[in-house]
Amino acid sequence: MSMIETISEQRCHGGVQGLYRHQSESCAGPMRFAVYQPPQAVQGPCPVLYYLAGLTCTEETATIKAGAQRLAAELGLILVMPDTSPRGTHIEGATGDWEFGEGAGFYVDATQAPWSAHFRMYSYIVDELPALIAKNFPVDAARSSIFGHSMGGHGALTIALKHPDRYRSVSAFAPIVAPSEVPWGLKALPRYLGDNRSSWAQYDACQLVRKQTFPGTILIDQGEADQFLEGQLKPELFDQACAEEGQELLLRRQPGYDHSYWFISTFMEDHLRHHATALGLP
Amino acid sequence: MSMIETISEQRCHGGVQGLYRHQSESCAGPMRFAVYQPPQAVQGPCPVLYYLAGLTCTEETATIKAGAQRLAAELGLILVMPDTSPRGTHIEGATGDWEFGEGAGFYVDATQAPWSAHFRMYSYIVDELPALIAKNFPVDAARSSIFGHSMGGHGALTIALKHPDRYRSVSAFAPIVAPSEVPWGLKALPRYLGDNRSSWAQYDACQLVRKQTFPGTILIDQGEADQFLEGQLKPELFDQACAEEGQELLLRRQPGYDHSYWFISTFMEDHLRHHATALGLP
Repeated sequence: MSMIETISEQRCHGGVQGLYRHQSESCAGPMRFAVYQPPQAVQGPCPVLYYLAGLTCTEETATIKAGAQRLAAELGLILVMPDTSPRGTHIEGATGDWEFGEGAGFYVDATQAPWSAHFRMYSYIVDELPALIAKNFPVDAARSSIFGHSMGGHGALTIALKHPDRYRSVSAFAPIVAPSEVPWGLKALPRYLGDNRSSWAQYDACQLVRKQTFPGTILIDQGEADQFLEGQLKPELFDQACAEEGQELLLRRQPGYDHSYWFISTFMEDHLRHHATALGLP
Repeated sequence: MSMIETISEQRCHGGVQGLYRHQSESCAGPMRFAVYQPPQAVQGPCPVLYYLAGLTCTEETATIKAGAQRLAAELGLILVMPDTSPRGTHIEGATGDWEFGEGAGFYVDATQAPWSAHFRMYSYIVDELPALIAKNFPVDAARSSIFGHSMGGHGALTIALKHPDRYRSVSAFAPIVAPSEVPWGLKALPRYLGDNRSSWAQYDACQLVRKQTFPGTILIDQGEADQFLEGQLKPELFDQACAEEGQELLLRRQPGYDHSYWFISTFMEDHLRHHATALGLP
């Protein structure tokens, strides 16, 4: 199913900020996503950058708060910002907990009932959404990159490490890098994937980088005043794994910054320029 | 009363984005406002730019959606973004209508009961808030400017026209310029100010500019796809009044843009640079 419904399209920085809805096969229900098309998209295909958001967020969060459109318009970059999970699943326990279920899909393909019926964000982000975008928007799909925040940083890192052929570059703001080792992951992964920890490894950046590195430098920004830094994020684990495996990593610790979109918007320009370079933009 | 309570302060673009609360004398109750302090504020006083928001908005709306902090940090400009009305007034009819009452203070001093007890946003913005800001933040109060959106554009224009000595510059996004002539004003002004139209004139930019012009060019951006353009905004009325009175006005009609913060964020940089020049910033 490649039909999309336009919820809204509004002029922004000379381009178009849109919100869309479609019926997802992967998630077996309606999904929403945001797309920013820069002015250059009227002339012809533009490279595309996927942004994966964190716990509690929707397709609107970064669209509204990250301030990415200004520079995307200057660079000629299409931004795609999907929701963080299926919605309205009516699965018992799927709502009411900000760390699990709706708003907390963790970018995995769930294998455990009842979650496996809808919570297949990995296939959605890797296969279904890019095909939908390629069919409906003027993207140069051969030039794709991916980034994200927190749970979405985990999504971006794991997806790029598994598909280095599909993404020219990857970066993250305050990512979860070792979900197998921290409370957020230890709460979500068993319910989505079962208790066998070997099934979690394919969704753990620290473990994935030991199997296959990503060509090019991974950029990560991490606020030093982030309330989740020590308990959930532990960037030192990824730093160590990358060092041992020869993965190029630029991990920048930013004094005073927390986990919020004030942090993200501050360093958004650096991330967009990182991707623009990899995507061959001026 | 010049005590303020800090709700939150977060690092943003090298400065601090804060939300604050205080007991307002003008509005006889608690009021909230947002302040962005650029990195330069640590070194010494910075000029200050007040932003007045539109119907339904709060101190957080432009703070989150307008994307102004990046350039304010570069320029060294303190941004102050107040709420659009008193809140929690418990006056019957003060809530439930997005065009009147809470969220719709219209930057007037109400003279009619029961509104006159709380709805005194004109005195709040002109006198109380600047004094509070000067006491609690490192502002160079002699260098102040003001701008706003829609109802807040009306507030900025009328306040600057009445106090050209206090503001170095004024600009507006899609302002209400003739509240005495359009449905929004015809609904709110009689209830706040009574039926005598002569009392409305002091809050009507088209009428004020005929009494006193503002030194320097007034900048206005107006989207041509704005859903309120013909019914509520009527920029041609202000254009004509300015032309007849010799008021310098740069009215830019922007094709394709609507009334939203996508429009505002697109032209925010131009407005900040307009004010920065008037405020003597590089």
